[in-house]
Amino acid sequence: MTRTTHTDRYFSPDPAVRDVARRLYASVADLPLVCPHGHVDPRVFADPDYAFGTPADLFIIPDHYVVRLLYSQGVPMEALLPSSSEEEEQPEARDRRHRAIWQTFADHFYLFRGTPTGMWIRDELRDIFGIEEKLSGTNAQRIYDRIAERLAQPDFRPRALYARFNIEVLCTTDAATDSLTHHQQIKDSGWCGRILPTFRPDGVINIDTPNWRANIARLAEVSGISITHYQAFVAALEQRRAYFKAMGAVATDHAALTPFTIALSDREADAIFQRALRGETMPDDAARFTGHMLMQMARMSIEDGLVMQLHVGAWRNHNRAVFERFGSDKGADIPIATEYTRNLLPLLNAFGNDRRFRLVLFTLDETTYARELAPLAGHYPAVWIGPPWWFHDSFNGMRRFFDQVMETAGIYNTAGFNDDTRAFCSIPARHDLWRRAACDWLAGLVTRHIVDEDDAFAMARALAYDLAKLTYSL
Amino acid sequence: MTRTTHTDRYFSPDPAVRDVARRLYASVADLPLVCPHGHVDPRVFADPDYAFGTPADLFIIPDHYVVRLLYSQGVPMEALLPSSSEEEEQPEARDRRHRAIWQTFADHFYLFRGTPTGMWIRDELRDIFGIEEKLSGTNAQRIYDRIAERLAQPDFRPRALYARFNIEVLCTTDAATDSLTHHQQIKDSGWCGRILPTFRPDGVINIDTPNWRANIARLAEVSGISITHYQAFVAALEQRRAYFKAMGAVATDHAALTPFTIALSDREADAIFQRALRGETMPDDAARFTGHMLMQMARMSIEDGLVMQLHVGAWRNHNRAVFERFGSDKGADIPIATEYTRNLLPLLNAFGNDRRFRLVLFTLDETTYARELAPLAGHYPAVWIGPPWWFHDSFNGMRRFFDQVMETAGIYNTAGFNDDTRAFCSIPARHDLWRRAACDWLAGLVTRHIVDEDDAFAMARALAYDLAKLTYSL
Amino acid sequence: MTRTTHTDRYFSPDPAVRDVARRLYASVADLPLVCPHGHVDPRVFADPDYAFGTPADLFIIPDHYVVRLLYSQGVPMEALLPSSSEEEEQPEARDRRHRAIWQTFADHFYLFRGTPTGMWIRDELRDIFGIEEKLSGTNAQRIYDRIAERLAQPDFRPRALYARFNIEVLCTTDAATDSLTHHQQIKDSGWCGRILPTFRPDGVINIDTPNWRANIARLAEVSGISITHYQAFVAALEQRRAYFKAMGAVATDHAALTPFTIALSDREADAIFQRALRGETMPDDAARFTGHMLMQMARMSIEDGLVMQLHVGAWRNHNRAVFERFGSDKGADIPIATEYTRNLLPLLNAFGNDRRFRLVLFTLDETTYARELAPLAGHYPAVWIGPPWWFHDSFNGMRRFFDQVMETAGIYNTAGFNDDTRAFCSIPARHDLWRRAACDWLAGLVTRHIVDEDDAFAMARALAYDLAKLTYSL
Repeated sequence: MTRTTHTDRYFSPDPAVRDVARRLYASVADLPLVCPHGHVDPRVFADPDYAFGTPADLFIIPDHYVVRLLYSQGVPMEALLPSSSEEEEQPEARDRRHRAIWQTFADHFYLFRGTPTGMWIRDELRDIFGIEEKLSGTNAQRIYDRIAERLAQPDFRPRALYARFNIEVLCTTDAATDSLTHHQQIKDSGWCGRILPTFRPDGVINIDTPNWRANIARLAEVSGISITHYQAFVAALEQRRAYFKAMGAVATDHAALTPFTIALSDREADAIFQRALRGETMPDDAARFTGHMLMQMARMSIEDGLVMQLHVGAWRNHNRAVFERFGSDKGADIPIATEYTRNLLPLLNAFGNDRRFRLVLFTLDETTYARELAPLAGHYPAVWIGPPWWFHDSFNGMRRFFDQVMETAGIYNTAGFNDDTRAFCSIPARHDLWRRAACDWLAGLVTRHIVDEDDAFAMARALAYDLAKLTYSL
Repeated sequence: MTRTTHTDRYFSPDPAVRDVARRLYASVADLPLVCPHGHVDPRVFADPDYAFGTPADLFIIPDHYVVRLLYSQGVPMEALLPSSSEEEEQPEARDRRHRAIWQTFADHFYLFRGTPTGMWIRDELRDIFGIEEKLSGTNAQRIYDRIAERLAQPDFRPRALYARFNIEVLCTTDAATDSLTHHQQIKDSGWCGRILPTFRPDGVINIDTPNWRANIARLAEVSGISITHYQAFVAALEQRRAYFKAMGAVATDHAALTPFTIALSDREADAIFQRALRGETMPDDAARFTGHMLMQMARMSIEDGLVMQLHVGAWRNHNRAVFERFGSDKGADIPIATEYTRNLLPLLNAFGNDRRFRLVLFTLDETTYARELAPLAGHYPAVWIGPPWWFHDSFNGMRRFFDQVMETAGIYNTAGFNDDTRAFCSIPARHDLWRRAACDWLAGLVTRHIVDEDDAFAMARALAYDLAKLTYSL
Repeated sequence: MTRTTHTDRYFSPDPAVRDVARRLYASVADLPLVCPHGHVDPRVFADPDYAFGTPADLFIIPDHYVVRLLYSQGVPMEALLPSSSEEEEQPEARDRRHRAIWQTFADHFYLFRGTPTGMWIRDELRDIFGIEEKLSGTNAQRIYDRIAERLAQPDFRPRALYARFNIEVLCTTDAATDSLTHHQQIKDSGWCGRILPTFRPDGVINIDTPNWRANIARLAEVSGISITHYQAFVAALEQRRAYFKAMGAVATDHAALTPFTIALSDREADAIFQRALRGETMPDDAARFTGHMLMQMARMSIEDGLVMQLHVGAWRNHNRAVFERFGSDKGADIPIATEYTRNLLPLLNAFGNDRRFRLVLFTLDETTYARELAPLAGHYPAVWIGPPWWFHDSFNGMRRFFDQVMETAGIYNTAGFNDDTRAFCSIPARHDLWRRAACDWLAGLVTRHIVDEDDAFAMARALAYDLAKLTYSL
């Protein structure tokens, strides 16, 4: 893979800093990509001949970063998403529609000036598709043609790109109820790529999830355990964790509105569980049950060694009309202020001193970096800080992360980088941004004589590669 | 108007960044000033011969930024404000008093080192009054003389300065109950300056306002509607909005402690309204009624097209003793932490997807830039982010705004700049700071190869001029 | 004392900025150190022959910054702290144990890369002990020997170092119940060093302190006042303040979870006090009583002129297991979000306009710098902002402080620097970091033409020296 966009991109214009940044970056630019957390669909690797579809399928339709910014400036959702009857459409009609989506995107590409999405797309077009022109309304169809042409070639199949991207391992995110069929197919195929599942039980743990009872039924089915009470539920989760682990999983992932934790007695937990089964939950039940189950997950992590990831702070589907018409993940999730010090007290007092336990905390509230997360990770043996997440996965977001986390926690209490993306083709651009931002930050430390060059080279490698492997035992 | 203070002020000392910043700035420095939100008194334009009074009248007495910093370091309020019997004073006594105020200010001018107020005053003295000396206790009276001499000249009348400042349009802020007499006089005078009113109904919407019942009586009077119940109140507001719009208004403005919104039934709203009329409100009545009326204002904005501005988060008149002796706006308003994601949920779910609606959000809590405001504006078609406000209307405040807002929202979901000042003569210095800060920020993006120069020039113009006009349809 | 680590450390790599920073720094580098707040044990100065013990005693065992980071990466507490039976150990066994602690520290010294603790230790080793090598597992024992050898010399006695460090005055922190015996010994010894006590009444004011009743008994004993009711308690505190003042104290210091203040009637206060004496407190009693006593402390400060320092926002002993086994101050205190605007309203309305009163506010929640603290200090005559504290006492912490506080408050509403350390030998490195960070910040203002050089030199001196003396009347 060539990196032809400006070789100094993201680096400080100061010649002294840039010189150090270049040398640090040169030492890590070609390290393999370790991807311990993300949302790429394992299906794309299960079928050796899987193709990505049209340029709109690849760059726009599934990318809520793109969709939300266009929508915010008045582009209707209908102009960006495939028709609900797309499956039945004629190929020509489908192509026309996707070309129109692409044209709308290109006409509004100026909206992405200075945004990380704009950077990633520029880098992807250039480094993966060899397109150096700036996308515009004028060249939109020509560029569409060039991308479509490339996507039709065998070396643009996901497995080929996996090799070209120099990925060492890529973890997906899979519901606790998932049968992991695609992962099994990947294993069976003998392909040498390393695609690992991650255990995500939100759909069965958060009792206010839409379709929770259906999810429990499904959990019973895949685990073979009849889930009529809390203890059976816990047993089913343990069974699924064991299955995920046998399938290669190294971690679990948990989303919640807040990091509230609480230890309920089995009786209390079962009472809530029974109410939920009957569809008669009381106001605090969901928060208390999730808080309790997070502690159960921590307990199980100590037993089975799966790293526990906690992603909190997003108010999901804030825009009800968009949710009802177009569903989740359309860019309508909005962060809220988040509190870790008090909320994690029960969990950390129970498990935070156990060196077998690894809890990786992610936040959408950057005020917690210096105030709560770095002090927690800088004390508890079990706590790690995940990289800047979602809205903060950007050059400035990374700079704030480095500036606000590292002095208190040191880099070795952080989990390195993860790309956390469903856009497979953006993975190299995302890791490249992280590596460049890290080297630029380190070059600042070197030129201010805060660390020496030897340390900076070691830190650059740790941030780019080692820490992700170490934290997740990959 | 000459700009003789250091031509590179506010620009990065890095030669590469400074070079780009200079060129970007050159392309926007002379664009007209668009002023969609501020507090200049329309009276100053109604009378063609209006004079600003003394240097103390111009620079100190009405400027709570100045008064508060002097007060914080032990200068008594009495030494900074005119005597309450000033109207009856002899001109000589008045002059002596104002000279003493000016001397006190000059003696303490070192307190303003590194503050935006210090910069604005330095720039005003130099660019408007041609005074290049640094103000000090020693030269205070000489500088007073020079300013006073200039202020006596016809080209220092507000209308002359309006032209000299190259202002294209200036919006004032006017109570819903205001008869807009001065605006009418400006219109009638045939003067070509464009001074527009803005509809601000806080005094009738916030039922805990001192004198609320008197304000309602005044609203009844100016609208000609007898306001004995909630529906009549709404009708009166609609009538006033129509009048303001006919008088040229393009926007409304709303201040509240928090952005709490809630949809009450007409019956609930009327019950609170009746209690307020009787002076018998209950604890949450004021917050609920304001929250409800903000939604009514949004509804009316969709109907009449007035842009809705929301300024929240200041605990007004924190210092009771100062308020009781000297009144409001003496620098004793202190911000509080503010929450938008949950608070705006009702309003945005009702109106946030309507592309006819424009809601401009301002904050005194910078933690909400990246966490809440940028995600909201980066999704909802109706949401814009206003420029850094009040305490944050400074070089660092702008840098934080650019760094924390733009990656998620893009610049096109922001409302450009507004000066939000009652100090008419500070307007050019404030716009100049914004333009310089924006160009310096953009030069950083260019030299880090995040945007190219073509984009940067377009973005500089948008931030300096276009976005303000577009957002407010000016 | 030589400053041999890189002469430009912490300065911007930009040549223009660095040049100004160097010149500013040269003008303040050799000013005496003013230390108005810290935790050095007065015992070390009471005995002219006091020795610091081993390198582990000096650098590791008492330093919770060091202990917590090692613990966070899996080093057991037992490997870092002296055995509880150390007093009875043979010197050889003790030496072996301390050497092992030092080896563990050196083996993990890479964890401190880029942290302020890493910088301070590097600077101390070099500037105080003349050790230029980077500490590592390999050279650990050799460096241990060199430090131990130095520590045995007379010029490494605390009083000798006090002179060598060029300390002008150093305030300790002493419980309200402390007899100040060591301070008396220092006075009696005729030594010219200026070591002043600070009145810290948390142990008697916070009724939820462990051993509160024992503390009250001790307070009765040292004050000679029988404390059976609230009024006697207040009288005893007034008596102790007078004693501390007579012993040279210039300030009081108060720690609380939040800055909540409230004025209780004497009857309410006594009712809580009586319940506390009986061990029957109700849920809000502790918070209300502390909130009330803070107001009493402010009232007394106006009367006796002691500066009032308020340190809030740490959740103490977050890790229960560590607290129970190893006690306080092991790095397990975690900050929480903090609110000042509403919480200080009662106190500031009662005393904030009194120019005899000086309240210095410290925070662990940096979001309050620009939002609450700078506006409060920039208005109230009685409010000052203390320097970056604890987790934020670092190069980036200082940059954020300068960037977020100074535009609104100006530098003259800040209290200059205090080192707030129990690690006596780190004092020069901490002041040096502050002076360098301040000069680097000022150099940025100069090169952006925000302040001129004359002002910058005055500001550098104020930040390095004058403000601390002025605020505390030293």
